[in-house]
Amino acid sequence: MTEATPIKPHERLAAALSSDMEAVAALITTRMASENAPRIPEVTAHLVSAGGKRVRPLLTVAAARLCGYDGEDHVKLAATVEFIHTATLLHDDVVDESNQRRGRPTANLLWDNQSSVLVGDYLFARSFQLMVETGSLRILDILSGAAATIAEGEVLQLTAARNIATTEDTYLRVVRGKTAALFQAACESGAVVAGAPEDHVSALADFGDALGVSFQIIDDWLDYGGAGDAIGKDLGDDFREGKLTLPVIRAIAKGDDVEWAFWKDALERGNATDLDRARAILARHDTLEETRVEAIAWRDRAKAALRRLPQSDLRDMLGDLADYVVARAL
Amino acid sequence: MTEATPIKPHERLAAALSSDMEAVAALITTRMASENAPRIPEVTAHLVSAGGKRVRPLLTVAAARLCGYDGEDHVKLAATVEFIHTATLLHDDVVDESNQRRGRPTANLLWDNQSSVLVGDYLFARSFQLMVETGSLRILDILSGAAATIAEGEVLQLTAARNIATTEDTYLRVVRGKTAALFQAACESGAVVAGAPEDHVSALADFGDALGVSFQIIDDWLDYGGAGDAIGKDLGDDFREGKLTLPVIRAIAKGDDVEWAFWKDALERGNATDLDRARAILARHDTLEETRVEAIAWRDRAKAALRRLPQSDLRDMLGDLADYVVARAL
Repeated sequence: MTEATPIKPHERLAAALSSDMEAVAALITTRMASENAPRIPEVTAHLVSAGGKRVRPLLTVAAARLCGYDGEDHVKLAATVEFIHTATLLHDDVVDESNQRRGRPTANLLWDNQSSVLVGDYLFARSFQLMVETGSLRILDILSGAAATIAEGEVLQLTAARNIATTEDTYLRVVRGKTAALFQAACESGAVVAGAPEDHVSALADFGDALGVSFQIIDDWLDYGGAGDAIGKDLGDDFREGKLTLPVIRAIAKGDDVEWAFWKDALERGNATDLDRARAILARHDTLEETRVEAIAWRDRAKAALRRLPQSDLRDMLGDLADYVVARAL
Repeated sequence: MTEATPIKPHERLAAALSSDMEAVAALITTRMASENAPRIPEVTAHLVSAGGKRVRPLLTVAAARLCGYDGEDHVKLAATVEFIHTATLLHDDVVDESNQRRGRPTANLLWDNQSSVLVGDYLFARSFQLMVETGSLRILDILSGAAATIAEGEVLQLTAARNIATTEDTYLRVVRGKTAALFQAACESGAVVAGAPEDHVSALADFGDALGVSFQIIDDWLDYGGAGDAIGKDLGDDFREGKLTLPVIRAIAKGDDVEWAFWKDALERGNATDLDRARAILARHDTLEETRVEAIAWRDRAKAALRRLPQSDLRDMLGDLADYVVARAL
């Protein structure tokens, strides 16, 4: 009991909820099987076995438990949420033409884009089957709405990419869609399955939303400010893909004509060869630090939402998780 | 009233159900909108406005009405079914790298693969939202199961492509998945929403399944036996994509070593330049005609299933539709 206490908040959460998370892992393995098409579990297992922190299913399980749930349906919801996430990762890697994910080659590289598209579709469909099994129309409404919002956010990101006139408002809508919607639905559905009172449901939904925004802003920080091997993807991916993220949007707003021409050439015309120069410009305008401060503001909103819930160990661990999310940018 | 009677069965069905189908069209337009991402309705409208016969939503509406339904939820189900179909078309065109669909350039050609993948995801999610609105867990189970079966069939088709050892059994599983599952779910969900007795529900499910198999077998016939401009896609697409369809599987089984080498080179190695020779081989072994006979057998199963339902005009029109499906191969 005294040896090697896990340190990171998501590891402490996973330890506190270990039997639930083992049930989630077992359900994921069972439900990703396909008698007819062995390619499906191959591709899915590649991504699932690469680990990932399983933050989203952890949120669902934690939300349900801290609302006093003692049933089994939260396990199905957690697996649903992870399936939706895995499906979007498969499709994202096709869309972004990525080569690396979670420190390993992407599925589209190991197999092909076709497999990534179709296996993603299968996982989406399986996720809906799982949520139907819970028998709750309200939960179906939350999760199917989140799936639509995610896709909308991804399309908006696609059309905003390679457009240096993209505004902070558009950026926030992309972030809310592609990331925060599922964090929010993960928390909210856990509270709903537990039959929590409405003010607790909305507190957890607000927590998930703010945590997701904070998480994505830091991810975007890491793409310029992080160390490539620590984040399991290539540093500068967003730069090369012409994505307009917060540090860049702010830097463009503050820059002169020479810098504007640099961003135009790099992000719109795709001549994104000089990452060092991009980083130097961000440093000159201090926009990486501004981005971190913005993420901290969202972290604070997340923690404020938690205070609308009764005190409990799980609640405090969720607060620590919010701290950890922004502490990745140091 | 006496002028220009529509001739084709799906046109007669559409005329008999015109107010329902107008409501379906209006709902599709409303629900494919997206405030955040204008690219979504653009891409969807391109495909939707290209027409298509809307066979699947017609089946849902017809099934509900012939079971005596007088509510409104069948319109939502029909739009759901069409959204699922449209989403799979968008993803199929990416997977197949197609250039033409319904006689027009494909969305992946006009926009890009990314848009097709993500807009397809959006339509999937919207379809689930629509079916949740019906409030029927049984219907959610039917349609989410169909979506999983479709994706499974597509993955199986992908792994079976470029493998000339593919069996008729695998072929049939692909057809059941990629085509018949949605025909079946379209019919079955229409019957369920109408509160039809179980023997009528299963009769309509069996009808949809057999109609779908028949439809796909004829589609595969048309790819070798049809005229390109009449089918709205390029003749020989399956040949060039290395798909193992029934006429080819049968011809390979009957062929000699020289022919085997031809198929190996064309379908597995991708040297599919000589469509005329492929057609000549199919003709020599009479496998296009065998394929047509197989489709007729499925058509007969579809019509036998209809006889388990009370006689009505709609039922007879569905029977005529089954005849029409196979009559495309003449």
